Amino acid sequence: MVFTHRFPTGRSFDAGKEGIALLRLFLGVDGGQTATKTVVGDEHGTIVAQSSGGPSNHTEEPGGPERLERVVLATIREALTQLHISNPNEHTFAAACFGMTGETDIKTRILKRIVRTEHLKVIHDSVNALAGATAGEPGIIVIAGTGSVARGINEQGEEARVGGWGHQFGDEGSAYWIGRAAVRATLAEYDRMAPKTILTSMLFERLSVTSPYQLTEKYYAGALSRDHLAGLSVWVDEAARMGDKVALEILRDAGRDLAHFAQAVIALVFPRFGDAARRTLDLKFLVCYAGGVFKCEFVLTSFRDSVSNGDRRAEVRPALYPPALGSLLLAYRAAGIDVPPNAMRGWVTSAS
Amino acid sequence: MVFTHRFPTGRSFDAGKEGIALLRLFLGVDGGQTATKTVVGDEHGTIVAQSSGGPSNHTEEPGGPERLERVVLATIREALTQLHISNPNEHTFAAACFGMTGETDIKTRILKRIVRTEHLKVIHDSVNALAGATAGEPGIIVIAGTGSVARGINEQGEEARVGGWGHQFGDEGSAYWIGRAAVRATLAEYDRMAPKTILTSMLFERLSVTSPYQLTEKYYAGALSRDHLAGLSVWVDEAARMGDKVALEILRDAGRDLAHFAQAVIALVFPRFGDAARRTLDLKFLVCYAGGVFKCEFVLTSFRDSVSNGDRRAEVRPALYPPALGSLLLAYRAAGIDVPPNAMRGWVTSAS
Repeated sequence: MVFTHRFPTGRSFDAGKEGIALLRLFLGVDGGQTATKTVVGDEHGTIVAQSSGGPSNHTEEPGGPERLERVVLATIREALTQLHISNPNEHTFAAACFGMTGETDIKTRILKRIVRTEHLKVIHDSVNALAGATAGEPGIIVIAGTGSVARGINEQGEEARVGGWGHQFGDEGSAYWIGRAAVRATLAEYDRMAPKTILTSMLFERLSVTSPYQLTEKYYAGALSRDHLAGLSVWVDEAARMGDKVALEILRDAGRDLAHFAQAVIALVFPRFGDAARRTLDLKFLVCYAGGVFKCEFVLTSFRDSVSNGDRRAEVRPALYPPALGSLLLAYRAAGIDVPPNAMRGWVTSAS
Repeated sequence: MVFTHRFPTGRSFDAGKEGIALLRLFLGVDGGQTATKTVVGDEHGTIVAQSSGGPSNHTEEPGGPERLERVVLATIREALTQLHISNPNEHTFAAACFGMTGETDIKTRILKRIVRTEHLKVIHDSVNALAGATAGEPGIIVIAGTGSVARGINEQGEEARVGGWGHQFGDEGSAYWIGRAAVRATLAEYDRMAPKTILTSMLFERLSVTSPYQLTEKYYAGALSRDHLAGLSVWVDEAARMGDKVALEILRDAGRDLAHFAQAVIALVFPRFGDAARRTLDLKFLVCYAGGVFKCEFVLTSFRDSVSNGDRRAEVRPALYPPALGSLLLAYRAAGIDVPPNAMRGWVTSAS
């Protein structure tokens, strides 16, 4: 996910030691594959500090737990230093919520040990992404970055997740999926099983290969990583803008696949028929999208059309707030606090 | 590829040193991912010895070249020892053909150094598989083992290859592809995006997992290899025989994908229209199949129906001879010799 946003910093604290002891601060963290983002809010729902650090993933690998510990402590310290709080390592938060990529068992154990807080919540990062996207209201988020996943929650608090099975079994419509489809299109052209595409000359020239054998060998020999494959998605967009029909179809397919995720979640949390039908029949709900893939207009248009045509109740739009703010919202909730709407309006939207 | 076959050994040689010098022997080798198979024929086209050893692949890895050298020298020595030839390492073959999996550059360099022969041919293993399958006649082979590939040659000697791009970009219809489809079917059922299937309980019980998360995690953590995934294809067959519609559809899809490979090769070497149309319009040609996946009746029926309905000229049948005999045939050809048909009839077919 790539969000461009900044946080308005409400005010600074120059409280003495006594003041800090009384200060109730709330911590929201989004621990992702590329960065760990931290926001701190005060008791009025105003964001007072923010910081970011390295990735939080791969805690199951050797050295991973130590890395997570370092990254989390450093970002918290940086945020609290902005508030001129001395001894930031000893500060106790009123509540803290961590939305973390990958497994949560190891992370929960580490965070319980290193974070001082009255309420600690550690959740999968699609949960806080959803909370941020809909500002905590019922709705759906579809995320398409390197991977892809969809999640939804209704007014009864019933949740559903679809996709998110990783590169080997899922990630339909993700940047990785689009990049791999580009390579497959080149191979299919070579095998005369699909039309010609300018993706072939693009991939050959830019990856310095002269045959499909060299192209695939580059991957199998480890010279072309899965992240590289995901990066190729930008060229597919470029080819589509040049009018290449094969590239365009790959991107439209991606949009449709992501719409299928949304539709599967809709069927689970906003069903049209059965017991829940009456209560949701005319109710509009948000279908938010987030992640770098939706920067591509062809994917977005295909996604939007498929979702809207499939269900008129769906209001398709970008995520309202980024995942770190979703975590902050859930931190407040963990302490039994609903953020006042006028405070939330001060939170800069992800689209700005 | 899994072939069950044995070679009839025509006769033994008790020739003295002078006799050996005059003896013209031909060497055919199929160097695959699981085994290296060697056959030796005499000047009459009679198979006089055979042997097998470990795999010949991964020569691009450290230690790979040394392993190939050991395996090849050992299998040749074993075959020549059956003929009571002393100093087998110093025997010079009349011709030798090696059909090798993967890259051929490194392998050619090694084989040139270690094999004494008047004519040396090193080719991709789909070439000798085709030569064996059609007994050197024009035709097509579709191979579906762990991976999948198709190859064809017409009466003008024009060749075409389709597929064979490996697990990341291709291998449609292969055992690996079927195994992965089984896991995907389980995940899709969980996401309510596809019907229920007994594959789910089968995979959960037999792989000792209790959720789709554990199932996919088993792969990503390295506890379930790509070879394991390929092995799951046997369970898909079992589920289909129990009447499971999802499993049945996976296998039928595999058969259709493999038929698409055959059709793409047909379009290239036996075109219906254009310059080549007249000469091939009424000509029958073989579409042979080989590899473990075709042991599955559902795949085979789907494949056979798709190919036959798509082109009435195609005669679908199992490969006539295994790949090592294809190499032997090409070794004879390299020396300008066509094996007499009555000698070839003595070669046991792959189906026996």
